[in-house]
Amino acid sequence: MSANPLKPRLPQGFRDFLPATMLKREYVIQTVKEVFHLFGFEPLQTPVLELRETLFGKYGEDAEQLIYEAKHGRSEKEPMAMRYDLTVPLARVVAQYENEIKLPFKRYQIAPVWRGERPQRGRYREFYQCDADIVGVANMSADAELVSLLVMALRKLGLTQFIVKINNRKLLTGMGQYSGVSDDQLPDLYRSIDKFDKIGAEGVEKELIERGLASEVVARMLKLIQAKDVGTNTLDNVEDVLGVNAIAKEALNELREMAGHLDQLGVPQEFYEFDFTTVRGLGYYTGPICEAVFTGGGIGSIAGGGRYDDLIGMFRKQSLPTSGVSLGIERIIVLMDELNLYPATLSGTVVQAYVTVFGEETRGESTRLAALLRNAGIRTELSLDGGKPKLGKQFAHANQKGIPLVVIAGSEEVAQGLVKLKRLRDGLELTVARASLAEKARELLAESL
Amino acid sequence: MSANPLKPRLPQGFRDFLPATMLKREYVIQTVKEVFHLFGFEPLQTPVLELRETLFGKYGEDAEQLIYEAKHGRSEKEPMAMRYDLTVPLARVVAQYENEIKLPFKRYQIAPVWRGERPQRGRYREFYQCDADIVGVANMSADAELVSLLVMALRKLGLTQFIVKINNRKLLTGMGQYSGVSDDQLPDLYRSIDKFDKIGAEGVEKELIERGLASEVVARMLKLIQAKDVGTNTLDNVEDVLGVNAIAKEALNELREMAGHLDQLGVPQEFYEFDFTTVRGLGYYTGPICEAVFTGGGIGSIAGGGRYDDLIGMFRKQSLPTSGVSLGIERIIVLMDELNLYPATLSGTVVQAYVTVFGEETRGESTRLAALLRNAGIRTELSLDGGKPKLGKQFAHANQKGIPLVVIAGSEEVAQGLVKLKRLRDGLELTVARASLAEKARELLAESL
Repeated sequence: MSANPLKPRLPQGFRDFLPATMLKREYVIQTVKEVFHLFGFEPLQTPVLELRETLFGKYGEDAEQLIYEAKHGRSEKEPMAMRYDLTVPLARVVAQYENEIKLPFKRYQIAPVWRGERPQRGRYREFYQCDADIVGVANMSADAELVSLLVMALRKLGLTQFIVKINNRKLLTGMGQYSGVSDDQLPDLYRSIDKFDKIGAEGVEKELIERGLASEVVARMLKLIQAKDVGTNTLDNVEDVLGVNAIAKEALNELREMAGHLDQLGVPQEFYEFDFTTVRGLGYYTGPICEAVFTGGGIGSIAGGGRYDDLIGMFRKQSLPTSGVSLGIERIIVLMDELNLYPATLSGTVVQAYVTVFGEETRGESTRLAALLRNAGIRTELSLDGGKPKLGKQFAHANQKGIPLVVIAGSEEVAQGLVKLKRLRDGLELTVARASLAEKARELLAESL
Repeated sequence: MSANPLKPRLPQGFRDFLPATMLKREYVIQTVKEVFHLFGFEPLQTPVLELRETLFGKYGEDAEQLIYEAKHGRSEKEPMAMRYDLTVPLARVVAQYENEIKLPFKRYQIAPVWRGERPQRGRYREFYQCDADIVGVANMSADAELVSLLVMALRKLGLTQFIVKINNRKLLTGMGQYSGVSDDQLPDLYRSIDKFDKIGAEGVEKELIERGLASEVVARMLKLIQAKDVGTNTLDNVEDVLGVNAIAKEALNELREMAGHLDQLGVPQEFYEFDFTTVRGLGYYTGPICEAVFTGGGIGSIAGGGRYDDLIGMFRKQSLPTSGVSLGIERIIVLMDELNLYPATLSGTVVQAYVTVFGEETRGESTRLAALLRNAGIRTELSLDGGKPKLGKQFAHANQKGIPLVVIAGSEEVAQGLVKLKRLRDGLELTVARASLAEKARELLAESL
């Protein structure tokens, strides 16, 4: 007991997850993990702290401002920093363990990252990323598999209103060249088109002209990126225009190859489309990119990824072709909460049975019953109330927590070798022989689902 | 591709876990988690970064030197630090959410912590802790439940050679008072006895005398802490000597109460004993303490805990009675590796079936088969080889990874609507109709177990 206790609080932008919230988060993560496994992706874990030199120089100067550096009181030879994403650590790992890792290397990692951004609604300084990447495959079967994975993961979570937009960085470059955008203007071009969803064609046009692009260049570009038709027709349409541009041709062929794989993988056509306004912010993409957008409004992008064939070369003499996707797990959780997509079987507690203590003289028997239920695999909370046991208070506790089953052993029941079971959902009561307690409890729980 | 790539490496004392290792770690963590659930403990997650003021002043000055502080490039109002354990964050949470949290609060947290210690064999700067705590229960049913939990968790992991040693901080105090140790010498006393396992009675005696305790005081103390008999007889024996000491009497009554609960909980007597040389390093314990020791030699303590009724009071006007245990998950994993305690069903890969691509003309069908297997819930890797497919290389990949089943669809099979299945363990081959592929694959996998 302390006269002036410390005010218990967290730094801004950080969160605690109490059990009921954790169970929901864990459901989402577990569902995604199972889909990763279905596609043969395996877990990798890298430490939170990396060498400073591993992280710096990878994300651009603005981002570097947001990386947390870590130091402790004793002298430290090597400056360290907290990971900013899961992709750079993957690139390091692939280079570091090149003899242990067999290609293709399909790994996932679901883990927190840290960014010292200004906290605002829905943006945190510690948040989870959920990445699956394929290292060592240059052809489009990898890129298609990742789109198939995204679609299956989102559908398994219960989402139906979404579409994966697919584009190719090389196609944007080819379109830029065709339209008359100079190479040094390409980054500006990407940056403006990336805002298409927010500011529309007019906004992009205005911005590009302000950035010094000629209006006829901008007009050509905007017409191209807005080309839209059914399936691969979209590709054919722009090829008719761009045909002579070599890089555009290569990009379109890659997208056609992807479309073929997507078809064979059985990805329903309603869940993907070619959309040339899709850019993805990150600088390191080199080929096909994709972005899953929630079409129910409001929340925008919920997953995305692409090919980044050069990144691993920062840690290795020869780079390796790599494609990856990242599920925006924090946004997806917000969406699941809003749409209430959790299964009815997911309750706010792990506890299945609550064993009450009727009176001081039956405490021993209640303790034995709890042990019996646990040994039978039933998740059991035993009343640990120390004073004179109050049954009402114990029932209130079970009710508040949403525990489905309550076990009561009064002195009469104990004397006769009996136990009472009460299901709180419907008030059903059953008096059973002690020997069949676990079995009956399991039956009542199964009926609860 | 980079002319001078960065040497890919980690800071000293940090580890990567490649998939095969991760699968083992996850097995251990999942097993422990299930036991936590059986006892009704629920998951809590706190952020890695806490306010500096939350952590500092809790662990002693030496430990504070090891806490990592975190800063990023933009100005930071509130100094932050990386969590050093999971107990202080729990105390903060209980105080911070006192209206949301219902008592008793039984939570677990399995998560990494950071300590800037000098790296050495088996000691890391980032390592996992695995804690279960009960907040709000003053009586010994909580302490007994935690011992029962430890025993069940260790046994479920396959460990048999261990014993949980139980003591009471108050008893050590009472013994000290009885022996003539002054209050200000008590911390020294604890510190020396804590080394009993390493330096033996003679070592402790020498150290205490060096610290200025009278030799007859030390002799009395050493005799008391070495009292050992069967079960609660150990308690009776020291009570005969210490009976008049009030604090010792209270401590012994608590231990007797614990013994009663342990008996009712069905904890086999071979797995616990009263041992008054058990101290536990941490300063904050106030009552019963316990330590699980591996008796197979070498590794020492693998779990431990105790009652710390005052800690929450650092964040709250009124403290709350609290007991907790912590499994030394990193040591346990080392032990599991050494004793090879993993189940035979745990293979080095999550993948169950590997779908080969026989030739370019059958790639489409192989892709469709992979999709079919995934939709049937079978964890499937599809060959993503881009060049002319080489079956031998694909089989080698499946073999190296330890994937149990290989799926082959040559042009002849495809033409007839057939698929070939090969189980690598015993070379069993089966040609099946496409429509029954998933079913047959499942059968072969089930027989593999």
